[in-house]
Amino acid sequence: MTTELDGLAERLRAFAEVREWERFHTPKNLAMALAGEVGELVAELQWLTPDESRSPDPETLSRITAELGDVTAYLVRLADVLGVDLVAAAHAKLDVGERRYDPVRYRGSSRKAPHLPRPPEAGGR
Amino acid sequence: MTTELDGLAERLRAFAEVREWERFHTPKNLAMALAGEVGELVAELQWLTPDESRSPDPETLSRITAELGDVTAYLVRLADVLGVDLVAAAHAKLDVGERRYDPVRYRGSSRKAPHLPRPPEAGGR
Amino acid sequence: MTTELDGLAERLRAFAEVREWERFHTPKNLAMALAGEVGELVAELQWLTPDESRSPDPETLSRITAELGDVTAYLVRLADVLGVDLVAAAHAKLDVGERRYDPVRYRGSSRKAPHLPRPPEAGGR
Amino acid sequence: MTTELDGLAERLRAFAEVREWERFHTPKNLAMALAGEVGELVAELQWLTPDESRSPDPETLSRITAELGDVTAYLVRLADVLGVDLVAAAHAKLDVGERRYDPVRYRGSSRKAPHLPRPPEAGGR
Repeated sequence: MTTELDGLAERLRAFAEVREWERFHTPKNLAMALAGEVGELVAELQWLTPDESRSPDPETLSRITAELGDVTAYLVRLADVLGVDLVAAAHAKLDVGERRYDPVRYRGSSRKAPHLPRPPEAGGR
Repeated sequence: MTTELDGLAERLRAFAEVREWERFHTPKNLAMALAGEVGELVAELQWLTPDESRSPDPETLSRITAELGDVTAYLVRLADVLGVDLVAAAHAKLDVGERRYDPVRYRGSSRKAPHLPRPPEAGGR
Repeated sequence: MTTELDGLAERLRAFAEVREWERFHTPKNLAMALAGEVGELVAELQWLTPDESRSPDPETLSRITAELGDVTAYLVRLADVLGVDLVAAAHAKLDVGERRYDPVRYRGSSRKAPHLPRPPEAGGR
Repeated sequence: MTTELDGLAERLRAFAEVREWERFHTPKNLAMALAGEVGELVAELQWLTPDESRSPDPETLSRITAELGDVTAYLVRLADVLGVDLVAAAHAKLDVGERRYDPVRYRGSSRKAPHLPRPPEAGGR
């Protein structure tokens, strides 16, 4: 089954190939490009209060959406070049988060939990 | 149809709700969390040459994958809170990129293209 | 006259030289290290409200101070490698900002001003 | 004695005051602004090889210098709002780095050292 992310990755791959940009698209360079786009996203929200950021006016939302598009594009391209499955990687981190942050103990709290010992069943990585 | 990103967004929503973390999950705060995770990702690649970054050793790749998982989780959560479709947003930016970077003119070149005038058919935003 | 930043730059230079780390300290790599440290700084503030961030508790302030130290170290090292005077560069940007943001027109406003045309007396750069 | 950083901090303070921007200048918001500027800096270097980044052409160096100026301005403003001495904070981190990275053991190596136990003489922080 081809997913929506596979389709996007494929389009990005073709976009780079037809322009002969593969040599620029190393993981190092793409991580920098990703950081640059996240910087632009953060800049859109920097002077808003947290509450204001929940309901940006249409023009601000349009600029935020454009930045989210750039961030997604570089993230998917980076994962493609490295052969990483982004959704599987996120679910794996959520598995850890669910064990690390007990729902009762951390209810309504933003404090950080200590890191968990790696479970024995995880094997060597 | 529920996509893989919808499924991830739903799991993240439930993860936040059961811990009563929604009040922390403003777009502003989530953009900061995203920037923090991208910083950790960049740090994994900072001393590698671009070529070395193409084939990280298994332990480095495992750490990079974990960071990509964190980045994806916060990006999907942020988009969910704002009601933005990440894949559609990325395709929209690629539409612009394909017009902006002529394949012949920018073949093998990393220089930036001038921004395009907004096309008349786009209407007001 | 040797300034406090010169002294710091010199100590950082010696720190790198004695460990033979100069080959890692390219501007590209140092900019990535700087981004990584800024990510850690942002992460310290991500769940605080803007008001809370004004008066962090002593332990949080201590962690923020440590991150500010890391950010400063990489910024000064990067500028040293490139031969850039950070304080002069900041003053030059403030010169522009003072012309761009009229005090009356932008009083109490966080909106962005349009970019200024480069003044004719600036000559070629 | 007034240092060059004190002078810059003072100019930034006056710049904000005369425009009544103090309420925007919380540490949280300023850290976001700093992250945005670092993103722009990283973007200037993203497609260069590490070697190319050592000797940027005059126009690229001019843009990098401008971004370094922005980064410095927000960093100094953030430290001023928090009452942190940036140079002292950087020296304190270098004190740690010098103990953590033995010059012989880490010569020519970019691998990370384990974190040091906090020294007993450090007292409570």
